[in-house]
Amino acid sequence: MGEESKEKLTVVKVGGRIVEEEETLDELLTDFGWLEGYKILVHGGGRSATKLATQLGIESRMVNGRRVTDAEMLRVVVMVYGGWVNKRIVAGLQSLGINAVGLTGADMNIIRSERRAVGEVDYGFVGDVRAVRGDVLERLMREDMVPVLAPLTHDRQGNILNTNADTIAGETAKALSQAFDVTLMYCFEKRGVLMDESDEKSVIPEIDYLLFRQYVREGIIQGGMIPKLENAFEAIETGVKEVIITHPEGIRTGIGTRVR
Amino acid sequence: MGEESKEKLTVVKVGGRIVEEEETLDELLTDFGWLEGYKILVHGGGRSATKLATQLGIESRMVNGRRVTDAEMLRVVVMVYGGWVNKRIVAGLQSLGINAVGLTGADMNIIRSERRAVGEVDYGFVGDVRAVRGDVLERLMREDMVPVLAPLTHDRQGNILNTNADTIAGETAKALSQAFDVTLMYCFEKRGVLMDESDEKSVIPEIDYLLFRQYVREGIIQGGMIPKLENAFEAIETGVKEVIITHPEGIRTGIGTRVR
Repeated sequence: MGEESKEKLTVVKVGGRIVEEEETLDELLTDFGWLEGYKILVHGGGRSATKLATQLGIESRMVNGRRVTDAEMLRVVVMVYGGWVNKRIVAGLQSLGINAVGLTGADMNIIRSERRAVGEVDYGFVGDVRAVRGDVLERLMREDMVPVLAPLTHDRQGNILNTNADTIAGETAKALSQAFDVTLMYCFEKRGVLMDESDEKSVIPEIDYLLFRQYVREGIIQGGMIPKLENAFEAIETGVKEVIITHPEGIRTGIGTRVR
Repeated sequence: MGEESKEKLTVVKVGGRIVEEEETLDELLTDFGWLEGYKILVHGGGRSATKLATQLGIESRMVNGRRVTDAEMLRVVVMVYGGWVNKRIVAGLQSLGINAVGLTGADMNIIRSERRAVGEVDYGFVGDVRAVRGDVLERLMREDMVPVLAPLTHDRQGNILNTNADTIAGETAKALSQAFDVTLMYCFEKRGVLMDESDEKSVIPEIDYLLFRQYVREGIIQGGMIPKLENAFEAIETGVKEVIITHPEGIRTGIGTRVR
């Protein structure tokens, strides 16, 4: 158990369609508004980036579920993640009386990363997180602001780098786990980790590492859920109190998969 | 004269090609880095917005030098101003050791505006500034941060609105003129207001309102320079100490047109 004196912080990561369609975005923001205590919103926006790239005749190339980001694609993701998606969320929260501030890792030097070395794959302008300024985020929150983080970082050499939003959320949660009792919520289209992908009622209420390994072996958990859960276990190990994988509705209903 | 105790703040507005081309942007950031005391950078990005709009098959329509901003064009300007141009400047300043933070008016509710009423022209999603949170900008600067403002505002009803960058700079300078001795610098491609547009050496060193009216009557001052100078005189009237119209080099060289 955490120290009694620590205050609660919830880091909510939302991705996929949720932040990209007007109706689901509005619902999300209302749900997010419900959350008590300190909070941070981390968003994705990959579908919109792919769509804009297509309109501009730029090919989207994914390797192991990660976007290859050349100079042209970098421009697209900075415009979409740092511009349109981020600012729409900020303006939406402001309309609910929540004093949001949209940030990339470059702003206030919040998240410094290092460009990923070229191995078998050259991911291009993709950054692996090196340092999160938890103190700066804490100061903003103590001044009643709600940080909204785009999945972009910088290398302090002038380069903006594309960074996975789940990773941003996980690293941010970790960086703040000394100062707060942190709950990390990964929100997506489903109600949680499902035993049966076609049955929304088959949410696994709780999962530990042994059960996770078993389900992976059995093929029940697969694809993008594997790195998501690995991130979750790593976060727990490094001091995050609780990780919940859920639909944004889960903020209100409490339904979701708790990772222990 | 201002009170002796006030500290110096420079609000630098840069527009046009300067922030849109790699080389001139780098020069600008180096020049801006030179500036002593508190500082704020306000940028435009109209050419890049027009270019992206064209690539997307969206027509750019200007009336009286102002962009008509329909829903599609709003998305473009938010992506370009709030995303690409803003974040490139922020990452560039960070690489120089300047702790920049990129903000639209929606972030931290810095600049609230009202959607312009439809008159002879429907400008669409264009906002006229109603309130600038000078106190919030001041707090950021006292924490050694350098705000970088994109020409976007919000109406606190969830709408992001397109707002002229010169206006943003002028209103920001005014809002901070109680707390600081404010110099407002409008930087563009020329060295100042020129007597002869084809002669870069014909910079008018100083101009007051009478001389301005005379030059307008004589056709020496025309086009976009007229609203720029009107903004400048209004800023002076409302407490801004000095307005300088110059090239970014003017930060170092001191060459430029001083508005009294």
